[in-house]
Amino acid sequence: MTTTEAGAATPAPSTETPHDRGVHGYHHQKDEHLKRLRRIEGQVRGLQRMVDEDVYCIDILTQVSASTKALQSFALQLLEEHLRHCVADASIKGGDEIDAKVEEATKAIARLLRT
Amino acid sequence: MTTTEAGAATPAPSTETPHDRGVHGYHHQKDEHLKRLRRIEGQVRGLQRMVDEDVYCIDILTQVSASTKALQSFALQLLEEHLRHCVADASIKGGDEIDAKVEEATKAIARLLRT
Amino acid sequence: MTTTEAGAATPAPSTETPHDRGVHGYHHQKDEHLKRLRRIEGQVRGLQRMVDEDVYCIDILTQVSASTKALQSFALQLLEEHLRHCVADASIKGGDEIDAKVEEATKAIARLLRT
Amino acid sequence: MTTTEAGAATPAPSTETPHDRGVHGYHHQKDEHLKRLRRIEGQVRGLQRMVDEDVYCIDILTQVSASTKALQSFALQLLEEHLRHCVADASIKGGDEIDAKVEEATKAIARLLRT
Repeated sequence: MTTTEAGAATPAPSTETPHDRGVHGYHHQKDEHLKRLRRIEGQVRGLQRMVDEDVYCIDILTQVSASTKALQSFALQLLEEHLRHCVADASIKGGDEIDAKVEEATKAIARLLRT
Repeated sequence: MTTTEAGAATPAPSTETPHDRGVHGYHHQKDEHLKRLRRIEGQVRGLQRMVDEDVYCIDILTQVSASTKALQSFALQLLEEHLRHCVADASIKGGDEIDAKVEEATKAIARLLRT
Repeated sequence: MTTTEAGAATPAPSTETPHDRGVHGYHHQKDEHLKRLRRIEGQVRGLQRMVDEDVYCIDILTQVSASTKALQSFALQLLEEHLRHCVADASIKGGDEIDAKVEEATKAIARLLRT
Repeated sequence: MTTTEAGAATPAPSTETPHDRGVHGYHHQKDEHLKRLRRIEGQVRGLQRMVDEDVYCIDILTQVSASTKALQSFALQLLEEHLRHCVADASIKGGDEIDAKVEEATKAIARLLRT
């Protein structure tokens, strides 16, 4: 459950253009997202240690639940930013894009629900 | 990535004691479990790359769904082995242990469902 | 699994104002929603029959999964219409409302994921 | 609505044969199950009323989450009784039946997870 070993993944210096910034809402919280994901990576590595050390099955399942929950929290935050930026932008522009964006977002939510 | 595909996996040569065998059902497929978990770790690292490279939010969400699904498949396989070994053992021994084991397993399933 | 007995729930003549129509996106598909929900009601009644007739546990669980899936499909459709109408409307109006709407929608999605 | 609250439920006077008892673990709490399911049926009917009266989408989604949660609680309780009775019985009898029962139960859990 330690996350220190994940420290190696230092965020690369960003080369994105201002246009990219507008397109992907989540970039404002890039550092926070990367920190979350490194913590989840640490949890998955913790699971490997648990299996390797023959930890009791139920305790491993508890840790799996925690990792899944952490992944879903990350997904929800990403989704919120996506709705706020991408879907809202499409609404303002008008036209058919809003329908396409909403359909796309709903399909992504359906995939999250089905996992 | 289904819970049944494990049938083909050859059990790794074991160095555990008979006592371990009785306690932790999953050890027969330790190598397969570790392989699965390393694949999931790779997926989570892939997510970090995606965030770092400003990949489109919806594509990141698709990858989150895949990782969550992989974690749940792992959990289901672990649970199946747990029921087969630990719960079945408790039934044979008789006494109150079966009730405790079943309650514990059900709570673990509830945690998986709620994530 | 029959839905005929639910037929009594005839859609009431609508008294909503044009303003209401604008506010609640789902109303365009009201009949379809009611039809879906009556089918789900029939499934839940089917579950009662199964319990009453001592049907095998696993078969009951299969029917529970079907009902849960049907409820989630209904939720996804409602959510899609909500995003298309309410969230999009808030974007066009501008101001703080879009943030509040997106946060509210995300919380609703989180509740769906956690059940 | 948790899986443990059933502890207090007094088993209804049973008119089933001993054979039935062996086959279906859940019958001891038949009355409690039926009560739960009737409550869920009421929730689904409440959803129809909400749609019919043009209630705000998010409030309907909250009620869908409650109904789904109630269905999953019912499923978990049924599963717990199934593991306690059917799976445990198969273990005691020995032979191949335990493998078949555990595989069947795991597949049912997978279906619950995927909804």
